[in-house]
Amino acid sequence: MHKHQSITAALLAVLCASPAAHAADQAAASGQTIYRAGSQPSFAGPVANFDGKVRVDPLFPAGAQGSFSAAAVNFEPGARSAWHTHPAGQYLIVTNGTGWTQAEGGPVEELHAGDAVWCPPGVKHWHGATPTTAMSHIALTATRDGKNVEWLEKVSAQQYRR
Amino acid sequence: MHKHQSITAALLAVLCASPAAHAADQAAASGQTIYRAGSQPSFAGPVANFDGKVRVDPLFPAGAQGSFSAAAVNFEPGARSAWHTHPAGQYLIVTNGTGWTQAEGGPVEELHAGDAVWCPPGVKHWHGATPTTAMSHIALTATRDGKNVEWLEKVSAQQYRR
Repeated sequence: MHKHQSITAALLAVLCASPAAHAADQAAASGQTIYRAGSQPSFAGPVANFDGKVRVDPLFPAGAQGSFSAAAVNFEPGARSAWHTHPAGQYLIVTNGTGWTQAEGGPVEELHAGDAVWCPPGVKHWHGATPTTAMSHIALTATRDGKNVEWLEKVSAQQYRR
Repeated sequence: MHKHQSITAALLAVLCASPAAHAADQAAASGQTIYRAGSQPSFAGPVANFDGKVRVDPLFPAGAQGSFSAAAVNFEPGARSAWHTHPAGQYLIVTNGTGWTQAEGGPVEELHAGDAVWCPPGVKHWHGATPTTAMSHIALTATRDGKNVEWLEKVSAQQYRR
């Protein structure tokens, strides 16, 4: 598969909740589904929706079993998402480094490894690294009517640096 | 609060989906809820339901926002859960080390950091460390009618060592 097709397919699988697009070690697990490390390609956060270098490592897709999908997202220093909302909400679990998140109208909140965040449906927000430190989080994103994110405008340098 | 009360309260909060029992930094986040690292006490996996040394670090409770709660669970070498089922299923995301899981009637599956597992509702299973290596996972457990686990018998040494 062509690299860009692969990236697009992987991104769509994460964003659009398509379990069939993911490798899963189902046969061997007798009732459990194992999504093996290394079985799903990493991909870059697309420039339309992110600033800076962002790598996404899929963990599991949404499916009949539940409305959440999961991915580990790794922001290099200075990298951040665009503003966006989630129609059915999103949890973040910070696994490494120090980053920032902000809901519209609120302060920028600093996040550290071990912190967890709940962003309710429809709350406009962004998240990413600080200018000088990388940040990784697991994102658990709920799906409603096959959609789990509404992308909006980029976070400007002025908004990011305050 | 007395230590055992604290442990019981924290365990019940994780197992019984009681958001009010958890410290959450809601005011500062303008629409997002931040569960700060260090704000929720760690507790030991109770001897009724675990063998060996198991530490649970709560991440977020179930709530109106979704039926999943999350905790990081850390198994020392030789430690494992009892057999159990989840009425609404459970995801595991392995964050460190190497461990084992088994669904009833199936083989013991080895798990490594980066692996994710879906255990469907009602599937009898156990998970834990190997005899010689620790394993940590994030457990994302769905709740149905206020309940997210049905504990069964311990995993015998014979079953564990095969």
